[in-house]
Amino acid sequence: MAKDFSTREENYSKWYNDLVIKADLAENSAVRGCMVIKPYGYSIWEKMQAALDKMFKDTGHSNAYFPLFIPKSFFSREADHVEGFAKECAVVTHYRLKNAEDGQGVVVDEDAKLEEELIVRPTSETIIWDTYKDWIQSYRDLPILVNQWANVVRWEMRTRLFLRTAEFLWQEGHTAHETREEAENETQLILNVYSEFAEKFMGVPVLKGVKTASERFAGAVETYCIEALMQDGKALQSGTSHFLGQNFAKAFDVKFLNKENKLDYVWATSWGVSTRLMGALIMAHSDDQGLVLPPKLAPIQVAIVPIYKNMEQLDAISQKAFEIKKALEAKGISVKYDDRDTQKPGWKFAEYEFKGVPVRLAIGPRDMENGTIEVARRDTLEKEVLQMADIEHKVEHLLEQIQDNLYRKALNFREDNTYRADSWDEFSDLIDKGGFVYAHWDGSEETETVIKDKTKATIRLIPLDDEHKEEGKCILSGKPSERRVVFARAY
Amino acid sequence: MAKDFSTREENYSKWYNDLVIKADLAENSAVRGCMVIKPYGYSIWEKMQAALDKMFKDTGHSNAYFPLFIPKSFFSREADHVEGFAKECAVVTHYRLKNAEDGQGVVVDEDAKLEEELIVRPTSETIIWDTYKDWIQSYRDLPILVNQWANVVRWEMRTRLFLRTAEFLWQEGHTAHETREEAENETQLILNVYSEFAEKFMGVPVLKGVKTASERFAGAVETYCIEALMQDGKALQSGTSHFLGQNFAKAFDVKFLNKENKLDYVWATSWGVSTRLMGALIMAHSDDQGLVLPPKLAPIQVAIVPIYKNMEQLDAISQKAFEIKKALEAKGISVKYDDRDTQKPGWKFAEYEFKGVPVRLAIGPRDMENGTIEVARRDTLEKEVLQMADIEHKVEHLLEQIQDNLYRKALNFREDNTYRADSWDEFSDLIDKGGFVYAHWDGSEETETVIKDKTKATIRLIPLDDEHKEEGKCILSGKPSERRVVFARAY
Repeated sequence: MAKDFSTREENYSKWYNDLVIKADLAENSAVRGCMVIKPYGYSIWEKMQAALDKMFKDTGHSNAYFPLFIPKSFFSREADHVEGFAKECAVVTHYRLKNAEDGQGVVVDEDAKLEEELIVRPTSETIIWDTYKDWIQSYRDLPILVNQWANVVRWEMRTRLFLRTAEFLWQEGHTAHETREEAENETQLILNVYSEFAEKFMGVPVLKGVKTASERFAGAVETYCIEALMQDGKALQSGTSHFLGQNFAKAFDVKFLNKENKLDYVWATSWGVSTRLMGALIMAHSDDQGLVLPPKLAPIQVAIVPIYKNMEQLDAISQKAFEIKKALEAKGISVKYDDRDTQKPGWKFAEYEFKGVPVRLAIGPRDMENGTIEVARRDTLEKEVLQMADIEHKVEHLLEQIQDNLYRKALNFREDNTYRADSWDEFSDLIDKGGFVYAHWDGSEETETVIKDKTKATIRLIPLDDEHKEEGKCILSGKPSERRVVFARAY
Repeated sequence: MAKDFSTREENYSKWYNDLVIKADLAENSAVRGCMVIKPYGYSIWEKMQAALDKMFKDTGHSNAYFPLFIPKSFFSREADHVEGFAKECAVVTHYRLKNAEDGQGVVVDEDAKLEEELIVRPTSETIIWDTYKDWIQSYRDLPILVNQWANVVRWEMRTRLFLRTAEFLWQEGHTAHETREEAENETQLILNVYSEFAEKFMGVPVLKGVKTASERFAGAVETYCIEALMQDGKALQSGTSHFLGQNFAKAFDVKFLNKENKLDYVWATSWGVSTRLMGALIMAHSDDQGLVLPPKLAPIQVAIVPIYKNMEQLDAISQKAFEIKKALEAKGISVKYDDRDTQKPGWKFAEYEFKGVPVRLAIGPRDMENGTIEVARRDTLEKEVLQMADIEHKVEHLLEQIQDNLYRKALNFREDNTYRADSWDEFSDLIDKGGFVYAHWDGSEETETVIKDKTKATIRLIPLDDEHKEEGKCILSGKPSERRVVFARAY
């Protein structure tokens, strides 16, 4: 199965693409830039959805659903938003096809032209704020804490499975608040939900911070983000949470009667993560043997493989295997017992290794005699023979260890690839090595652009903590700076 | 809240629309024919999804995701399919907007015209079978048992919230099989999943049967369906399961090497239910006091309302209420304790009644003294005062009773509105009364059309059971018939 599979060293980009396709996660479709998410890949996404959805609901949010289409004119209402979003998008112009006159297939019916074109949503602020206008009259109608799981379309020219596709799946939260402070708190709350999800479920450590003006969401006052480091030293923006101020309320005229009985514009946030997280998950942990999945997001957490020479042996092993399966499932662990007779154990071992199943158990005739079981962990590829007694507790503990180990490994990798640069030469050398580089920047967009043009590195974020607050000089202009910001080349 | 709310008697159609809007289930959006599903409505849909998704997975299916867009030419591949689906649909012709020359907003960039138009999926057979072509080489790759939760678009001219909207949410299963028999069994399996879901979760009894040729899915060999009866005597098709034969395999050239090592076309099914089920749920049970929800799909199963004159009383009641809430939640029952001080108890009673919350508990100072609690059930609007002790078991039992009662009530209604007609006069009188009419039909499409033109009644289904197999004469033509079929006016 893993034949023709590139190593990370040989070609990181090809390694990633091979892995996505050969591990049955996703593939390109007949529609340019749109992917098919295959069942195994989708089941990982479902686990992500379930965990995030619970976190949203635990923090008071509800799901709803808004239209796929947005009238073209809505995009022009918010000046910055139209620049950012109403350009590369799918435009619906007609609502009917008819039989071709030559009898060959169907053609667009020119009589069925829409008066106003509809845009397939690239993001839903405009249609949602147009809706909120009718939902909000007074402070009693606030806050509105709504999330939507949906597909969106942005007509990307260069696409890569999960990382950048024309259509992708995501969640987009859209909240409305009485006060600036409450909206700002919401923005931070969600940033923390995202970072907790990335670290505790995905096992991916992230930096939290705020974007520079040039990297801000079109229409936002501030964009907060989480950034992860991939194994090739490139950063991946993994989630954004926007404080929108009153921009969309003003654009869609959404006012409310506040507690002082005065009309005021509503304060807003929006925030999202997408199937791009699948890319982060794959690239953060996987190795040259295939996928490595953190137990909390693995569709199959434990695979059990019987090793046997005849049916009598298989029957005895199966009986034991089903006992173990049941004991593990009682602990909420998902188990696949693979007793297919069409494949050899070695093939099955390779299969589960390649697909990133965290723990593999193997039981052979000698194990049956000795009351033992072979336990293999995917993260370290280590095997050991354990006593079968109480195996469910051992496996439960091992899954926790693997989850922790993946996070620690990724954290160590990030720490080993995080640098401080104090001069231009130092900076450009470090950027070439890959990783996060903390450096001083003079705060101007001009400097940011020059640095990007020279090195392909962008400012990933301005850290929120005080650790990097220190006087210094911009690595490019030499002008004074008050804090270091984080540079990296990015996906 | 229920002011301006029509009764069913006055205007059934307005009653339905008022209910959907005033109970915060859904509303029309700024985009013609597209609805906004509001948080309360969406949370019911989420409960439906969860139950169905579990049933699909328990029967061996996995979820996946296929593109939103389908190349226009794909529709022409299957001759019947193009007639049924490639007509009223949203057509994407361009992929870019640009700033208008007059500086007013954005316009379509004519330089960004797609070579081939893309259709927003009205259903996904074509793109999925184009994908399956690469997934299937031999019988070892079969069966494929895949489902997709997605949005689809059909450009309907006359729309009604949930019942008929341009965009709607649904699940569509698409399976591929080695043999005709296996595909036919899958079609039936899913029909049974649908009817079980309708009856056990929605509390809606359904008839199962097969559609006539004229009502068949475009491209199917047979379409099986479930049909429910609404309170106005009209039928509502609530789910369909299609046996597609080898039609799509032939159209997309999907062959496999069978066990005899010969190439054969793959056998297919597809099946779906949509947000239309929300319409069925609402219309089957609700009354002139508002929504009535079956406990298994109610987002809030129990509402607790405190009745108090001062904060001291409220504190004591709240303590008790939280105890009860906790005991109920330990049984998996969802509870809302409404201690808002901004609304009076009477307002809250009306609110939960209107929103269909199955059980309402009220606790006042006298209850605290006597160790009692008032229990009101939404289905019968009955109230009784019970001892507080062991209230969680009583409520658990009551919820089961309500679930059963709603189903039985709907079943009785259907039985009271199911008739047999043996002559044209009898038939046309009964169709005017509303309900299901079992009558003989000669099997011709011509007769079917005449009956529809004269009475607006359609053949909802040909029953699967043998109960209605009997010799008779067609009510219109007098020609011989072998079984009664079910007629009704329908949504």
